[in-house]
Amino acid sequence: MDSKIKDKNLVKPQDFLFGETEEDALPLDCGRKLRSVNIRYETYGKLDSDGGNAVLILHALSGNAHVTGYYSEDDRKPGWWHEMVGPGRPIDTDKYFVVCSNVIGGCSGSTGPRSLNMETGKLYNMDFPVITIADMVRAQFHLMRHLKIEKWLSIVGGSMGGMQALEWATTYPDHVHSVIAIATTARLSPQGIAFDWVGREAIMTDTNWQNGEYYEKAPENGLATARMLAHITYLSDESMSRKFGRGLQETDEYSFDFSRNFAVESYLQYQGARFVERFDANSYLYITRAMDYFDISERAGGNLSAAFAEVKSSFLVVSFSSDWLFPSAQSREIVRALVNNNIEVSFCEIESSYGHDAFLLEIDTLGKMLSDFLRNRHQEWKHG
Amino acid sequence: MDSKIKDKNLVKPQDFLFGETEEDALPLDCGRKLRSVNIRYETYGKLDSDGGNAVLILHALSGNAHVTGYYSEDDRKPGWWHEMVGPGRPIDTDKYFVVCSNVIGGCSGSTGPRSLNMETGKLYNMDFPVITIADMVRAQFHLMRHLKIEKWLSIVGGSMGGMQALEWATTYPDHVHSVIAIATTARLSPQGIAFDWVGREAIMTDTNWQNGEYYEKAPENGLATARMLAHITYLSDESMSRKFGRGLQETDEYSFDFSRNFAVESYLQYQGARFVERFDANSYLYITRAMDYFDISERAGGNLSAAFAEVKSSFLVVSFSSDWLFPSAQSREIVRALVNNNIEVSFCEIESSYGHDAFLLEIDTLGKMLSDFLRNRHQEWKHG
Repeated sequence: MDSKIKDKNLVKPQDFLFGETEEDALPLDCGRKLRSVNIRYETYGKLDSDGGNAVLILHALSGNAHVTGYYSEDDRKPGWWHEMVGPGRPIDTDKYFVVCSNVIGGCSGSTGPRSLNMETGKLYNMDFPVITIADMVRAQFHLMRHLKIEKWLSIVGGSMGGMQALEWATTYPDHVHSVIAIATTARLSPQGIAFDWVGREAIMTDTNWQNGEYYEKAPENGLATARMLAHITYLSDESMSRKFGRGLQETDEYSFDFSRNFAVESYLQYQGARFVERFDANSYLYITRAMDYFDISERAGGNLSAAFAEVKSSFLVVSFSSDWLFPSAQSREIVRALVNNNIEVSFCEIESSYGHDAFLLEIDTLGKMLSDFLRNRHQEWKHG
Repeated sequence: MDSKIKDKNLVKPQDFLFGETEEDALPLDCGRKLRSVNIRYETYGKLDSDGGNAVLILHALSGNAHVTGYYSEDDRKPGWWHEMVGPGRPIDTDKYFVVCSNVIGGCSGSTGPRSLNMETGKLYNMDFPVITIADMVRAQFHLMRHLKIEKWLSIVGGSMGGMQALEWATTYPDHVHSVIAIATTARLSPQGIAFDWVGREAIMTDTNWQNGEYYEKAPENGLATARMLAHITYLSDESMSRKFGRGLQETDEYSFDFSRNFAVESYLQYQGARFVERFDANSYLYITRAMDYFDISERAGGNLSAAFAEVKSSFLVVSFSSDWLFPSAQSREIVRALVNNNIEVSFCEIESSYGHDAFLLEIDTLGKMLSDFLRNRHQEWKHG
């Protein structure tokens, strides 16, 4: 991938703790408050003296704060958007000060259901409050203050990251100069809610789940099933046909049994097995629930244009032709609502067979678009 | 639905047993033989003296032999295609002798994994051989002989029923006058294989599954999860949006928990719960596996046109615009391959928002098409 770069761009995750007293605790949409909130984050590049080059990247369901670079010289796997973010890459860390944080509710360093509840001395598990996308963003706002950033040059997110980006622009209009919303939606569709429900059922009916109180044995089967199901929704019929077709794995013949026989079965099984090594089942429940509850139009009684009335950022909205989880029509709905408010918005539907996953794969096309948009916004900031 | 009809069209399921000796056993694609094969079937109407009005209806994954009518005066629920089949209905049992049988591998009377293995005295469970669509059809051929039918006026099937119809026309060309193939495919797509895999994983990782040897407690959670997942694929994004939207159930507010809160969640949970009352988990494994292995082009090295070279039936192929499980493109592929063989084929893509389920719901449009096609084929038979 990146063999020419000898310097492995070593990065170090950082932690920011806030809300240690009852008064400072993070208020949540559900009515509860979250105390002792840790935010795991990473930064890349340097903040300009005018503070005008700060870019916030927001991760999707299974992402984390580690967006690019390596943790050590031996580290074989870089961050999840390494080809997009880094020195000389589309989101150029030689030019921009890039920040990425793990969402609350997550399992990659930020406070979530597997964190210690300071008040009880036990893990939260299902005592963790049900959080929303707005709660995630409210926590990120504290991080922004901590980093002494007044306004983001741009906030960039794909999928659930795009939901957070829309939430930022709507709730904190004075702190967001521009937004790049990729393969996302203003409200999760009933089909999306339905897939989330089935994934959670797989986890919560796994006998190892134990109402969330698992210690020695995690509900790995349930989590793997949920992940495999989700994975199908990230691909497209076309990409699966191109990649696997009806091809068999390690054999020329039908096995006439129930073990993996087709290549696509091997692929799914592999994806499920890798996922349970790095992700927590309770986090999966909480983060998918946050997505279910996301409907940015709700604050305006379902009127999306009215919901965007206070937005001050300019927008780049990108969708992918074969994405059926967050289809282009849902991006167009965002664009129309922004245009109704005379907000500057560029929209592009990228032709791609990769389905929803395209936002992680179409680096060339998407990268060009993002780097141009960022450069223009940066010029604006410096000269405006 | 049918309140005007006072006579409830009482019907009685029948059984046909064959293959009681080793020589008569049913040879299967996997190389094994199935002995003591029972076929549960129902018939409606009367066979003409010239034998020219026999119509075979083939059911889908979760269907059974009970296609229409009631079992008793108190029976509240009619057969699964009651509005389509019956006296004066599109497939008119006053005119046609209609036959429907439960597939082998099923759990509604025909021999399947929960049947007694005569050789061991135990239930087959996972000792049941992995069967194919061709095996199901081979068993139906025995039933045809038993009913003294020489040639079907028409073979009608939707979804997996359509697969069987294609198999009949290809394997027994002299016994099929015409075929009506609805919302089906010549080979299950990798996406379809993937969904089946995840559904089976949900069942086989349910601790109650016990490698198929469940007796007191069935793997109901796993089967319900598989069914809920499948149900999403039977609907369309559009029909879910129309039917449920993001509406809540029995409340005006987000519950901020993991119990069902959205209407679509209630719907899925209900569908899952009803399904486990009437369907068997092992059967679900076997029947989905049969669908995975279905590729009618395989006998001709993947060349679909060549696979249809011996076909003598005329065809009506119907697809539905919003069906993304067996999309119209897959029906068009069948049509093209038939046309390449100069086979008479009519094709219609019905505009419908119901997704794959449309074949059970679009009775008016589909019914008109089917009754016209059947009438013309019947005229042909009588006068040709």
